[in-house]
Amino acid sequence: MRLSDRVQAMQNSPIRKFNPIAAEVKAQGTKVYHLNIGQPDIETPSVFMEAIKGFDQKVLAYAESPGLPMLQDAIIKYFKTFNMDLERKDVLITSGGSEALTLVFLSLLNPGDEVIVAEPYYTNYLTFIQAADGVIKPVTTYAEEGFKYAIKERLEKVVTEKTKMISIVNPGNPTGCILSREDMRVICDFAKEHDLWILADEVYREFAYDGREMTSFGQYEDVADRVIVIDSVSKRFSACGARIGCIVCKNDEFMSQVMKIAMGRLCCPTLEMVGATALYGLDPSFFDEVRKEYEHRRDVSYEALKKIPGIVCEKPGGAFYITCKLPVESAEDLLVFLLKEFRDNNETVMYAPAEGFYATPGLGKDELRIAYILKAEDMARGIELLGKGIEAYKAAGHK
Amino acid sequence: MRLSDRVQAMQNSPIRKFNPIAAEVKAQGTKVYHLNIGQPDIETPSVFMEAIKGFDQKVLAYAESPGLPMLQDAIIKYFKTFNMDLERKDVLITSGGSEALTLVFLSLLNPGDEVIVAEPYYTNYLTFIQAADGVIKPVTTYAEEGFKYAIKERLEKVVTEKTKMISIVNPGNPTGCILSREDMRVICDFAKEHDLWILADEVYREFAYDGREMTSFGQYEDVADRVIVIDSVSKRFSACGARIGCIVCKNDEFMSQVMKIAMGRLCCPTLEMVGATALYGLDPSFFDEVRKEYEHRRDVSYEALKKIPGIVCEKPGGAFYITCKLPVESAEDLLVFLLKEFRDNNETVMYAPAEGFYATPGLGKDELRIAYILKAEDMARGIELLGKGIEAYKAAGHK
Repeated sequence: MRLSDRVQAMQNSPIRKFNPIAAEVKAQGTKVYHLNIGQPDIETPSVFMEAIKGFDQKVLAYAESPGLPMLQDAIIKYFKTFNMDLERKDVLITSGGSEALTLVFLSLLNPGDEVIVAEPYYTNYLTFIQAADGVIKPVTTYAEEGFKYAIKERLEKVVTEKTKMISIVNPGNPTGCILSREDMRVICDFAKEHDLWILADEVYREFAYDGREMTSFGQYEDVADRVIVIDSVSKRFSACGARIGCIVCKNDEFMSQVMKIAMGRLCCPTLEMVGATALYGLDPSFFDEVRKEYEHRRDVSYEALKKIPGIVCEKPGGAFYITCKLPVESAEDLLVFLLKEFRDNNETVMYAPAEGFYATPGLGKDELRIAYILKAEDMARGIELLGKGIEAYKAAGHK
Repeated sequence: MRLSDRVQAMQNSPIRKFNPIAAEVKAQGTKVYHLNIGQPDIETPSVFMEAIKGFDQKVLAYAESPGLPMLQDAIIKYFKTFNMDLERKDVLITSGGSEALTLVFLSLLNPGDEVIVAEPYYTNYLTFIQAADGVIKPVTTYAEEGFKYAIKERLEKVVTEKTKMISIVNPGNPTGCILSREDMRVICDFAKEHDLWILADEVYREFAYDGREMTSFGQYEDVADRVIVIDSVSKRFSACGARIGCIVCKNDEFMSQVMKIAMGRLCCPTLEMVGATALYGLDPSFFDEVRKEYEHRRDVSYEALKKIPGIVCEKPGGAFYITCKLPVESAEDLLVFLLKEFRDNNETVMYAPAEGFYATPGLGKDELRIAYILKAEDMARGIELLGKGIEAYKAAGHK
């Protein structure tokens, strides 16, 4: 009655594993500022629930395995604004970006196959890749360099004969790093040279600040057969609980193979697809206001962080995360202290310790990821709590 | 740019792969009786949509990774009627029974590990097991024996040192075979003797006919640490499109490990869990009427099948499927003929060819699975079309 080696090798999500402690704390009446998870407080556009409330079929039946055709069409239309020309066969609806990633790795990786990933990375990539018995080959990035990883020499250093793909999150989670057109070109050329797949997780596409361009790897004709784009309604439309994402790819062979797994799991939830269709149909101007709001939150968060003595961080260009180095030895220890011992006006704060965002042993122990998903005043207060918490932690004799 | 061996080894779902042809046929105005998929025409209880329409949170947020606590509690209460005493830690909500099975196999199987499965089996088990690089070890069953597989000697024959688990669907899909208490005892003892996990997919629990008892492997105290029960709202509540299922298990080590994957994929859709909570709260008397209806459909279907010359089938005791042997060499060829060439009053019929339900090469080519999920008169007409289609197929010179 053993368990599989793969599941035993997995870690508990560093983003979610402290939630049970937080739940206890909140049950005791303490307010916790949740900066640990990318759960925005922006209201979900009302068209989502309106569309669902309008659903009037008497039998809630299985949907098509690739997804409701009307949702596929809405996604095709959305991508037209990025000059991408898709057909239904190029779009597979999934249960969130998470299922999309799982399906991709299961379809591409043999046991021991390697995936190039910039670290720190969105920690659940490790779980998805381990589920397919694959291995992460990290390209370490640094706050001081703006977490840049599209550097030919550094990519060349980690490529081996077992490398199957390079996996990108752009704009980046957890670093907020955003690729320039030149960076994207470097990655496309690298992938061609080594015959690699490019997995481009672009769920934060619209969260590009300071006038940066919104892009997609799907716009590069010369790599169209090797690019797999991941999309999702979670962040863009503040609809994380809908669990609707998709795989977009012009490689017919890949799509027909991944469809075999998709048919096995039957389909995504019908109602959520009805709601998601309405979301994808929103006018692009919807994002302008949202973007302005997040840009403001980023600025407020960054300024508040800079006030904490000894903290190291750079202003990110996209997504809604900041990764920074703390003036303590263990970000996990500090978090447990904040949850269990520290209170300021009966409030405390929670973040994601970054150690689980690194594949290289020893890195990230003193780093954290903050998601700036609360309104500016709450971000300021949450980060103020972090600063006060660090002070109290040190005053209590911790390093 | 290769694909993984595992995905290339997978088959296209024999239940769904002919759907594109059927879609063309229907677009041309021909009526197709879909007996290929377990999609009931029973109305989804209205409490489902009512609960969802009542959802009034402004932000559709991520839910807890194990599922909404209120849904866990509703499931715990449901299982109490089967004298099972569960806690929240024993219940993990999943995106349908499909995700539940995927998570279980990923958590238990190392590459090459074997799973004992009675064949013919629900074909997607092969896909789920292949996704975890596991191997099906089939115990062949026969219509003439009522598809019985709980026979110690036959199970002993397929067990090896690589056997990790025995996987049961009870009541059975695609055979309709239902285990007696004696059968369940045989399987429990066998699992204990060989130290195997018991995966008990019981999504058809209430579909037990002719006064047969509704059971669960979760009722057997002496195997409580090795039993993993799969449940789902799809069939029981005619809510296939909701994609809500669960894993139920009293083994804390297993549950803590599978939770690592569950945290990686974040959560199930919030709204569907709200609706599912209402479904699990329905009074058990709800099933009595549903059961009577299916029993009637089974009887009508069975009688109609018996009228087709040369067909071999037995009356099933549970679920809503009949597997039978056809008087033709290839059930797939016949199906393509029915879809592309045969028409009666501009109508035709679709079923699932059973070859993909067998692991043993050569078996099942002349067999099909019918789902009696349409109302009795439609079942009778669909099966009449099958009979007429076979006649036309033979008249056209096919064997």
